Amino acid sequence: MDIVKELLGGSRLALSRTITAIENEHENASSIMRELYHHTGHAFVLGITGPPGAGKSTMTDKLARAYRNMGKTVGIIAVDPTSPFSGGAILGDRIRMNGLTLDEGVFIRSMGTRGSLGGLSHKTADAVKALDAFGKDIIFVETVGVGQSEVDIVKAADTTIVVLIPGMGDDIQAIKAGILEIGDVFAINKADHDGADKLQAELNMMLDLDGLKFDWRPPIQKVVANQGEGIDDLVKLIEKHYAYISKTGKLAQRRHDRTKTELLELLNSSIGTYVTKHIVDTGRINKCLQDIEAHRNDPYTIVHQLMDELLK
Amino acid sequence: MDIVKELLGGSRLALSRTITAIENEHENASSIMRELYHHTGHAFVLGITGPPGAGKSTMTDKLARAYRNMGKTVGIIAVDPTSPFSGGAILGDRIRMNGLTLDEGVFIRSMGTRGSLGGLSHKTADAVKALDAFGKDIIFVETVGVGQSEVDIVKAADTTIVVLIPGMGDDIQAIKAGILEIGDVFAINKADHDGADKLQAELNMMLDLDGLKFDWRPPIQKVVANQGEGIDDLVKLIEKHYAYISKTGKLAQRRHDRTKTELLELLNSSIGTYVTKHIVDTGRINKCLQDIEAHRNDPYTIVHQLMDELLK
Repeated sequence: MDIVKELLGGSRLALSRTITAIENEHENASSIMRELYHHTGHAFVLGITGPPGAGKSTMTDKLARAYRNMGKTVGIIAVDPTSPFSGGAILGDRIRMNGLTLDEGVFIRSMGTRGSLGGLSHKTADAVKALDAFGKDIIFVETVGVGQSEVDIVKAADTTIVVLIPGMGDDIQAIKAGILEIGDVFAINKADHDGADKLQAELNMMLDLDGLKFDWRPPIQKVVANQGEGIDDLVKLIEKHYAYISKTGKLAQRRHDRTKTELLELLNSSIGTYVTKHIVDTGRINKCLQDIEAHRNDPYTIVHQLMDELLK
Repeated sequence: MDIVKELLGGSRLALSRTITAIENEHENASSIMRELYHHTGHAFVLGITGPPGAGKSTMTDKLARAYRNMGKTVGIIAVDPTSPFSGGAILGDRIRMNGLTLDEGVFIRSMGTRGSLGGLSHKTADAVKALDAFGKDIIFVETVGVGQSEVDIVKAADTTIVVLIPGMGDDIQAIKAGILEIGDVFAINKADHDGADKLQAELNMMLDLDGLKFDWRPPIQKVVANQGEGIDDLVKLIEKHYAYISKTGKLAQRRHDRTKTELLELLNSSIGTYVTKHIVDTGRINKCLQDIEAHRNDPYTIVHQLMDELLK
């Protein structure tokens, strides 16, 4: 296809249109991805997650600049929390990165949910592949990390940085436990604020207790992202983690696991689309709902019947 | 089944075992739910969501006490962010509610993801139905609300309270936009802190701009939950919203929409389980992964082939 040739030839417009096709579940998206797939596997994928207000966009900005200074080309996918109804992605944070958008070596894209149920991690993974095929050396996937869906998004990464800040209150305990195992490197941002030492001590304690991490004990780096402090040291830790996973075969294992997860998600989402076409678009679901509401039938029995009809 | 009879007869143990069966996707869960389904539809379901650190558990605690004082029986489902690997739910917050756990009229349950992909909203909805069939008058569904999965969980509610606090930083803008449309009532907790008036003014402005809300303009209530301030006024607003949705037919419409969403989710998750059994448990997926990794095939072509095999 022309768009694939153009993308592989370096057209930013073709790349942009490809990601739009992915996001909108355009009918061409899967055939584009099929052709791009054989050109992937080159890029290093860096996940950046953390609670709201942790300064993830600023940190992504600074890290992207650092990698640009090292001569690497950069892709950034910022996954935004959006309304389930309006579908609009919030791009405000990205305005700060204007300096980067003028750099031809950087491609920035914001992705939202657009109302589709649970498809965001699969769409993010496809967008990462498009940037990879385009030839980007390092791809940042930045997302607000609290819930399961954000954790799923970060699974697309080779190395994941968890960004925390001092003084987040009680719920941070739950969050820290939830994201403890996905963090390869921890960054304490706003480290010039009160409570940074306390947070570092708490994190150190939690990481030391975590028996799963005996091979690679995730390091903690203090950062003041908006002043660029600690960014170079953070880059060194990221590179160190990359060297570690490359050497030990863990990178290959992560990518194998990721391919498996993505294959299952693609299968589930494709079947979901098929089911929607046969149940919703035909109006069949309305008859089912009438039966449920009149207490003539229940959802569990109906699903059983529908599966008999749909599956071999 | 005995467990259904016992649950309907008022056994807390049977209720607890039913929710465990739902959570673990036990083979009996769907037949239990099938029998319970005809006993549901009585309870008022109240969603409580908001960013980490907003004090949602404390607010749930105080609201639950207020409803107990009005003679209502209460169920609470606290959906916890958990690790995708360990599957353990964080129960720390619930310790504060010890006073409530001694009250026979209150049933509290924590639910985590247990590693299953995207099934949490469907499991939460089933747990709500179990509490409903058990005879609870009001059921609280409390969840950390930032991402899409949390928004999906809150869809199980008749009325949703969004809890915010002053001083959450930049990302709160994105969150506020994301949850603006799911909030029927807004509570500004820690209203004795700096910035509460500013947050209220910002929220008022955003809500006034939101043209979708011309019928019911979501009210904002300032609260200091840990001191019980503003709780009675918040209860009045919840009751007012309930009266509004009952009178206008919006409650029936919400429940119809919810039944539709739940039916589709149940269908998707059942098909997902079927697919997993036929692709993963048989080892079939390993052959697919080998083909992908050796570049003999790509995931998009494989999914196409698998769908031909699985679907009629």
